[in-house]
Amino acid sequence: MYSEAGKKQLLEMRESIADQYKKIKGFGLSLNMSRGVPSIDQIEIVKPMLDVINSDSSLVSDSNINCGLYGTMDGLPEAKKLFGDMMDVESDMVFVGGNSSLNMMFDAVGNMMYKSPYDDMPSWSQVEDRKFLCPVPGYDRHFAVTEYFGFQMINVPMRDDGPDMDIVDELVKDPAVKGIWCIPKYSNPTGVTYSDEVVRRFASLKPAAKDFRIFWDNAYAIHELTDEPDVLLSLWDECKKTGNVDLPLFFCSTSKVTFSGAGVAAMAGSDLNMKFFKSRYTLQTIGFDKINMLRHVRFFKNIDNMKDFMNLHKEHLKKRFDIVCDKLDKELVPLDLVKYKRPKGGYFVSVELLDGTAKRVVQLCKEAGVTLTGAGATYPYKNDPDDSNIRIAPSFPSTDDLAKAIDVFCYCVKIAAIETFSQ
Amino acid sequence: MYSEAGKKQLLEMRESIADQYKKIKGFGLSLNMSRGVPSIDQIEIVKPMLDVINSDSSLVSDSNINCGLYGTMDGLPEAKKLFGDMMDVESDMVFVGGNSSLNMMFDAVGNMMYKSPYDDMPSWSQVEDRKFLCPVPGYDRHFAVTEYFGFQMINVPMRDDGPDMDIVDELVKDPAVKGIWCIPKYSNPTGVTYSDEVVRRFASLKPAAKDFRIFWDNAYAIHELTDEPDVLLSLWDECKKTGNVDLPLFFCSTSKVTFSGAGVAAMAGSDLNMKFFKSRYTLQTIGFDKINMLRHVRFFKNIDNMKDFMNLHKEHLKKRFDIVCDKLDKELVPLDLVKYKRPKGGYFVSVELLDGTAKRVVQLCKEAGVTLTGAGATYPYKNDPDDSNIRIAPSFPSTDDLAKAIDVFCYCVKIAAIETFSQ
Repeated sequence: MYSEAGKKQLLEMRESIADQYKKIKGFGLSLNMSRGVPSIDQIEIVKPMLDVINSDSSLVSDSNINCGLYGTMDGLPEAKKLFGDMMDVESDMVFVGGNSSLNMMFDAVGNMMYKSPYDDMPSWSQVEDRKFLCPVPGYDRHFAVTEYFGFQMINVPMRDDGPDMDIVDELVKDPAVKGIWCIPKYSNPTGVTYSDEVVRRFASLKPAAKDFRIFWDNAYAIHELTDEPDVLLSLWDECKKTGNVDLPLFFCSTSKVTFSGAGVAAMAGSDLNMKFFKSRYTLQTIGFDKINMLRHVRFFKNIDNMKDFMNLHKEHLKKRFDIVCDKLDKELVPLDLVKYKRPKGGYFVSVELLDGTAKRVVQLCKEAGVTLTGAGATYPYKNDPDDSNIRIAPSFPSTDDLAKAIDVFCYCVKIAAIETFSQ
Repeated sequence: MYSEAGKKQLLEMRESIADQYKKIKGFGLSLNMSRGVPSIDQIEIVKPMLDVINSDSSLVSDSNINCGLYGTMDGLPEAKKLFGDMMDVESDMVFVGGNSSLNMMFDAVGNMMYKSPYDDMPSWSQVEDRKFLCPVPGYDRHFAVTEYFGFQMINVPMRDDGPDMDIVDELVKDPAVKGIWCIPKYSNPTGVTYSDEVVRRFASLKPAAKDFRIFWDNAYAIHELTDEPDVLLSLWDECKKTGNVDLPLFFCSTSKVTFSGAGVAAMAGSDLNMKFFKSRYTLQTIGFDKINMLRHVRFFKNIDNMKDFMNLHKEHLKKRFDIVCDKLDKELVPLDLVKYKRPKGGYFVSVELLDGTAKRVVQLCKEAGVTLTGAGATYPYKNDPDDSNIRIAPSFPSTDDLAKAIDVFCYCVKIAAIETFSQ
């Protein structure tokens, strides 16, 4: 344990590690563990999807819609079914969009900013002290959307079973609190899946603001790393029981099922919500890309095939996550230098370092040629109050590169820890 | 000439036509000339594009970008070149987006509503009496966007060479006037291409509002119906001469080049404008569908091939436009019941009927099973002050159906005219 070492001992360790770090810097590495991007290997396994529609194919769907023509604002009925199953909601409440669920979330916030779904309420932009709840650590791109739209973002601590619901219950009593960002399964970055209890408490939430919305971004709904998937309770089913049907907005995409950036995204919600959002989409576009929807639908046919297909991704992801986690377990956990939970799905490993060392570790890694997600990125305003959280994204690098990168990371964590204890 | 016929003569004509109309109603037709949608024939000719990317293809572009992965916010460099050539601008100022140029225009207005590109100016939403100029007749979906965002829309008459620029010059002296909708080539619905003089006057415009923008929607840039295309002067070149580089925003898409709804859209503008719009797109999405961009780029390679390809569309379109225009020339023009100009490109025939008869004609057509674009749709607030303009969209129906539909239309115009003159 570094924490129990004497000054002299720390000094010796520091010198020895400094030598190794110097050597590593000499390698001229250029490695990246910063973003949740699938590997080239994963892109290759998706390519057969490109064959299901060619010049001999009919572009007319089973539902008798010509996908080469304008129209069908909601998206192909077959795609609504597939995404409904992915989000655990009924297909008729699904709206299938373009390639980006983030864009649909941005549009949803933008929509509520400008108009209210309720005639007797101001739009969000008219609420000067508007606030949004942000479970932390969380997803930087979520926070960037609500920052852009001028929300005061309030941190809600993540626990092992989801956001701290006692705090959420308290905060939603403020009518200026308009929403909360949630990634309920294999959360980015913690990997936490919300417990049944947390889902039920969300369904029972009593926000003061009638226009409060839960942004339920099920980004990793079927993105497993083990053979024993976490099971997420259906928020929609629970909301139907409590009558809180207008509370949740559901989002998902195939960005990490098929192609990142050339997949299909979808959203869903209650009648009131979808009528509201569709009324704007109808002005915004003549419709989204139905040929890509058809490609997805013909390739997967149903959610079971899609889940089976995810096993191909798992093969590539699991070995990468194992490299990272095995190394953390061997090098840092025994020294008590890191707290983390081996994720069962998703795209990230979230590590808690000694307070005040995250920025330093990112800097040390960078100088040694390893790019990490910026320290603080997992917090609103990039401000991690303890400067302790780092998000590791193991998916993209080759296994060789990843092994090198996590080695460097471990050295850097040790250096930063020794620096801290020597102070 | 109906206008010169006596009461008795009109009564006789009315009876004879009423008989024919009754007969037509008995046919139980269900025909649609309402939207600018390509025909099924046109969709078929595009299908070979679906073969250029399959599972054997590399997804890495010539510019060395893996199109199966996130990133490259601007779009593929090769696509930027293709769309730059389509819009007559430099490729480095192009932003390639999703499948819908309308969505990019909606986003552009939405962006300016919420933030200003200038630190010292309010956003458009903060200008309570904000106004937008609408050349009429024009495109209903443009008007719907500015109506949604609360602009007072001001009609600007279209002349044979573009919008009446004397009126535009006058109106832009009002600092609350923030923009103008333009379809500069084969305008929807009039088919007018703006003259060099009009383009130059746009480039020389001196709006009181620094944040005034020309929305230059070049929707029919290469959509010819004859072998002697109209040539549109490059607004961008002219703006560089006058120094008014921040004035225009350029838009285009392949919705009527490849697939309607599964094509690719793009926008372009000055450094200041594109920096501003990109800063929002960066929050809105991780990037647009690059595989579809790659498909387009590999299929067309360059703008010349794309223009050649448009000849295949022309074949299908020209015969349909000829059916409509020949019939109008034969049945209605000699009777002075319609004014129109045979378009040289685009997707519409805009007809001016006797004042006060457009709604009646649409209604009569509908009762006989022929759907036209709603009367008034070509005007802001669906309000055609003279109730005289009708937009005919000949592209979608089969030639047989179209011949029947335009027959019905001619009967209905005659009936409405006789009704008017008999009053």
